[in-house]
Amino acid sequence: MSHLLTSKLAETLYTSIEGLPIVDYHTHLPADEILNDHQFENIWELWLKHDHYKWRLMRGCGVEEKFITGDASPYEKFHAFASILPLAIGNPVHQWAHMELEKIFNITIPLNAETAEGIWNQTNRELSDSTTVNKLLQLFKVKLIATTDDPFDDLSSHKAIAAKNHPTQVLPTFRPDKHLLEDKIDLSSLKQQHDYFHANGCQMSDHGLGQIPAPETPQYEALKAIAQWNHDKGWIMQLHLGPQRKVNTRLSGQTGPDAGFDTIGSKPQTERLIHFLNDLDESDQLPKIILYNLNPNESPALCAALQNFQQADSRPLALPNGRPLTPDKLQSGRELAGQAKLQSGRELAGQAKLQYGPAWWHLDHVRGIREQLDILTSMSALGTHIGMLTDSRSFTSYVRHDYYRRILCSFLAEKAQTGEMPNDQHLLSQTAQNIAYHNIKNYLNL
Amino acid sequence: MSHLLTSKLAETLYTSIEGLPIVDYHTHLPADEILNDHQFENIWELWLKHDHYKWRLMRGCGVEEKFITGDASPYEKFHAFASILPLAIGNPVHQWAHMELEKIFNITIPLNAETAEGIWNQTNRELSDSTTVNKLLQLFKVKLIATTDDPFDDLSSHKAIAAKNHPTQVLPTFRPDKHLLEDKIDLSSLKQQHDYFHANGCQMSDHGLGQIPAPETPQYEALKAIAQWNHDKGWIMQLHLGPQRKVNTRLSGQTGPDAGFDTIGSKPQTERLIHFLNDLDESDQLPKIILYNLNPNESPALCAALQNFQQADSRPLALPNGRPLTPDKLQSGRELAGQAKLQSGRELAGQAKLQYGPAWWHLDHVRGIREQLDILTSMSALGTHIGMLTDSRSFTSYVRHDYYRRILCSFLAEKAQTGEMPNDQHLLSQTAQNIAYHNIKNYLNL
Amino acid sequence: MSHLLTSKLAETLYTSIEGLPIVDYHTHLPADEILNDHQFENIWELWLKHDHYKWRLMRGCGVEEKFITGDASPYEKFHAFASILPLAIGNPVHQWAHMELEKIFNITIPLNAETAEGIWNQTNRELSDSTTVNKLLQLFKVKLIATTDDPFDDLSSHKAIAAKNHPTQVLPTFRPDKHLLEDKIDLSSLKQQHDYFHANGCQMSDHGLGQIPAPETPQYEALKAIAQWNHDKGWIMQLHLGPQRKVNTRLSGQTGPDAGFDTIGSKPQTERLIHFLNDLDESDQLPKIILYNLNPNESPALCAALQNFQQADSRPLALPNGRPLTPDKLQSGRELAGQAKLQSGRELAGQAKLQYGPAWWHLDHVRGIREQLDILTSMSALGTHIGMLTDSRSFTSYVRHDYYRRILCSFLAEKAQTGEMPNDQHLLSQTAQNIAYHNIKNYLNL
Repeated sequence: MSHLLTSKLAETLYTSIEGLPIVDYHTHLPADEILNDHQFENIWELWLKHDHYKWRLMRGCGVEEKFITGDASPYEKFHAFASILPLAIGNPVHQWAHMELEKIFNITIPLNAETAEGIWNQTNRELSDSTTVNKLLQLFKVKLIATTDDPFDDLSSHKAIAAKNHPTQVLPTFRPDKHLLEDKIDLSSLKQQHDYFHANGCQMSDHGLGQIPAPETPQYEALKAIAQWNHDKGWIMQLHLGPQRKVNTRLSGQTGPDAGFDTIGSKPQTERLIHFLNDLDESDQLPKIILYNLNPNESPALCAALQNFQQADSRPLALPNGRPLTPDKLQSGRELAGQAKLQSGRELAGQAKLQYGPAWWHLDHVRGIREQLDILTSMSALGTHIGMLTDSRSFTSYVRHDYYRRILCSFLAEKAQTGEMPNDQHLLSQTAQNIAYHNIKNYLNL
Repeated sequence: MSHLLTSKLAETLYTSIEGLPIVDYHTHLPADEILNDHQFENIWELWLKHDHYKWRLMRGCGVEEKFITGDASPYEKFHAFASILPLAIGNPVHQWAHMELEKIFNITIPLNAETAEGIWNQTNRELSDSTTVNKLLQLFKVKLIATTDDPFDDLSSHKAIAAKNHPTQVLPTFRPDKHLLEDKIDLSSLKQQHDYFHANGCQMSDHGLGQIPAPETPQYEALKAIAQWNHDKGWIMQLHLGPQRKVNTRLSGQTGPDAGFDTIGSKPQTERLIHFLNDLDESDQLPKIILYNLNPNESPALCAALQNFQQADSRPLALPNGRPLTPDKLQSGRELAGQAKLQSGRELAGQAKLQYGPAWWHLDHVRGIREQLDILTSMSALGTHIGMLTDSRSFTSYVRHDYYRRILCSFLAEKAQTGEMPNDQHLLSQTAQNIAYHNIKNYLNL
Repeated sequence: MSHLLTSKLAETLYTSIEGLPIVDYHTHLPADEILNDHQFENIWELWLKHDHYKWRLMRGCGVEEKFITGDASPYEKFHAFASILPLAIGNPVHQWAHMELEKIFNITIPLNAETAEGIWNQTNRELSDSTTVNKLLQLFKVKLIATTDDPFDDLSSHKAIAAKNHPTQVLPTFRPDKHLLEDKIDLSSLKQQHDYFHANGCQMSDHGLGQIPAPETPQYEALKAIAQWNHDKGWIMQLHLGPQRKVNTRLSGQTGPDAGFDTIGSKPQTERLIHFLNDLDESDQLPKIILYNLNPNESPALCAALQNFQQADSRPLALPNGRPLTPDKLQSGRELAGQAKLQSGRELAGQAKLQYGPAWWHLDHVRGIREQLDILTSMSALGTHIGMLTDSRSFTSYVRHDYYRRILCSFLAEKAQTGEMPNDQHLLSQTAQNIAYHNIKNYLNL
């Protein structure tokens, strides 16, 4: 079998989604590097300069900090990473690294201490010859990127990219986290910036929260206000619940934030989420929401919680079927029905307003992705899911979409082969296509 | 492979339990519809009039409330359900719907917007021709139904059914939930009704609790009193722990209770359960208990908790073995032993007094059932388990027993094939038979 | 397929680790029975006299206490155990019992009520003929045993064993639990004993805790002091988090402690663990730690928590690779690199200072072991793991190492076959060898 494809059927399904474009609706990519078509000095810059997933793994293998964020040379750091990689078989960092080597550099030998020098030389040659940010975006067929931005960012890079008619659409995301931690939250400035972001194509806010704030606190009220602005503008609100940050105070004091010392928090999430959703729903101001959680021990409860607040939304998804059920088909299905007089001008169904988001961060691996898909399937309508994002700071992380697509196809194929899903290749394939591409496109009103 | 049967061995095991009667020890079925041999107007009444599982799934696909609990016509509602069903492949509602169509109506095509009209017409024809409640009970070989009843119900339907010598035994269950929420709990009236229920064949109480009440509260004391009455009468006490109800206040205000707005709660369960069990055990008044939990994050702890309070009980189960070990065999096994003088008049073993109940409600799907079986196997004696129930308001939900039996056989076969269980077809088959039928029969003293 | 080996590749990997010695770094074995080469009167003494896993399972099948810890005869108790065993297929007690019968007594028939007498006679014959503690240790190739000892134990058995040049190295472990519960904790006496244990070869402390004590309590400060002593001496600190003990007060009052009434606790663990680790790390006094947790609902958070505090350590592990990477190879890998000037006299990498320990107690079964391996793989570097221990009071429990090794090989093979790990037999085999033997050897500085 091919990589991560566990059956013939999985391979067949994969061929139907392999070539679909990528809508990467949540990333930490730097817009200016897209604008300037940044070129990388070497694979250390591409892989190790910013990637705290790799740093954390290296520490887990006892590599000294000098070779991670310290003053060792780029090659020494790359060599250290290569040396420990064989210890991490099965870890997503191992899987992604080899997928990236193959996809971008056509390298199929394993990376380790012995091959490190050769791979260092070969990749650096290619990086200096031809590989740029935009080449990478083209290679991966990235149709849309949503960056993550401070509300007071002037969005000059985004404007310049838009002005250039760049083949990849680059949207900002309104992420006010640090401003909600201030003693006095300045909501009117934030509202102004929310409007400004909207005028510049923004369609989403994003919130990284250890826990949803306690009701009636200023933080809670601010979050609620933003939810209401989102609702008014038809935006999507992303909630990333559960990290506990900088838990190693000594080392994170040296390295600064986002250096691999953020962990899975253990604060309870479900009750506060329910309160928040209900609070917004009561005044009919609940926006579209994508919820991500970091601690899997509440995954079933959180996925179930969302289902209490789903409701009709004005834009249907592509709707799969025994034979494919496009919105038009659905319409004709109605006409066929004859005796039933259904409302016109509005599709009946198809979209999940509240999305239980894909496996996030410490859960972004085969185990986590399969668990998310399985919970979603068991508790809601998998076919409405908006699929994968990278959440990455690296332009090579686009293999994670391929990684996800392979796992998705294997998941669907296994369910079909056990009879948990219909063994109907057309329906399965359309489901995979919708999850890989069409649903997020519709969800974002593209 | 057949539906949900994942190996030849699974198929073989399944043939040995496929035809066993059903003892449905927990349902929400209306006794009067059994008494009156109710006939259904159409498949909407059968499927969609009361089924909040389906309503919730429809909302999750963005169907408007009008087509769920609103004023749309029965056909429109059925059509809306059919239209979204292909989005929910892998969800138990999808699986059950197709199993019901096949078993009851002999329909094997997938239900979707295109097939909705034909299936509407065909099922309605059969419903008006021949399908009644009692036909359904016969079709599914339902030997016993336990309904769920208010303590102040007069049980007239149950009495009338009993008087009729109905082929299905219909027992009431004493469910005092709402009376335990009152300011002043009237224990003496409840006790009177407990006696009355006993006189009318009741053998079980049932309690739906967000959490076991805090010790020393009136609610706790009332629950404890009922446990003691149960113990005195040899009843079984069912504890359904963990739902958080009506969390969407706006919509559940419109729809009333049991409309799909009850979710997986996140209150801690284990410590209070342990306290409650120990409190009863200390005075030797611990009744038989079946525990169900809704939030799977405490499943291992809860299953383990029960094992601390197991103890000998007077009625043995059928005991499987290399060669089958009936109680007689067990007796002869002892005689064989010779030098061991064992007590007579009482079987040695075989019954688990405290039962970790089957996967409940939001967990009633392949993932949840497999997890429950796996936890049970790993932490206790699977062979003592009392198996499945429907917990349903619908007479067509009996396919859920078939669903469970298939998953059980696949589970046993997989364990045998990896060597986790002995690859002994006779022993596996007897285990499956006991879980599917004999254990609950013995547990209920039938 | 052979027992627990789920593919040809799994079998192949297993042949490469099957014969490796056992380093049993955490047990409750009695040192004096090793010293005296204890012989067992019968299989009841070997299996049932002390084994609360079996007692608990028997209670779960409704066996009366008389036949468990009561005054029934040894044969009656053995017969009762045999009788219920077929009810517990898939449970680790069932699996271990049959593995022990096969490995030690060459018995391959299933144990049940019918075979009990024959097996009783045969095993007792062999026990009186030839089986002693040291024969068992030889049979299982046990290279090292760490016992669990009260700090005020005089270690006379350990000293005598060491003096005898016993083929199995028997190390004490400093377990001060009960002394940390005293009103006034006598740290200076404990420190003296810590030094005394060190002088007698001890390399580890061990702590069974419902929960890490709250910061600033005397218990917390004592635990922290011991951690600092451990750090100073290069010891390993074992933290066993999560049991709730003697929850059945009536029966555990009769039986005393460790009788099967200890259960999976539900106290939160992650936040306090993070606080404790960070507190020690801030003053650079964090010792090597092995963390075990009993409630799996925090397993991912706990495994992730450890990764924040990993850091370079002075002793490398054997480092697997495409071609094996011994420390020398790593050195030569560096020399190969040429342009990179790496520090000398110290290996770059390879050891995880903080270990997420193997599945413990109520989780020591196929489900639990696979889950631990999968979480570890997904969140850290599996190749650094120190593998299995028995945690047992029985000299026949050494089959649990074989059990673990089989599950490990099947796990690696499955991951390789789906493409989650490289399908490189050499690398997989070296990973398995390191986990089964070399890593713990290095971790213990043997």
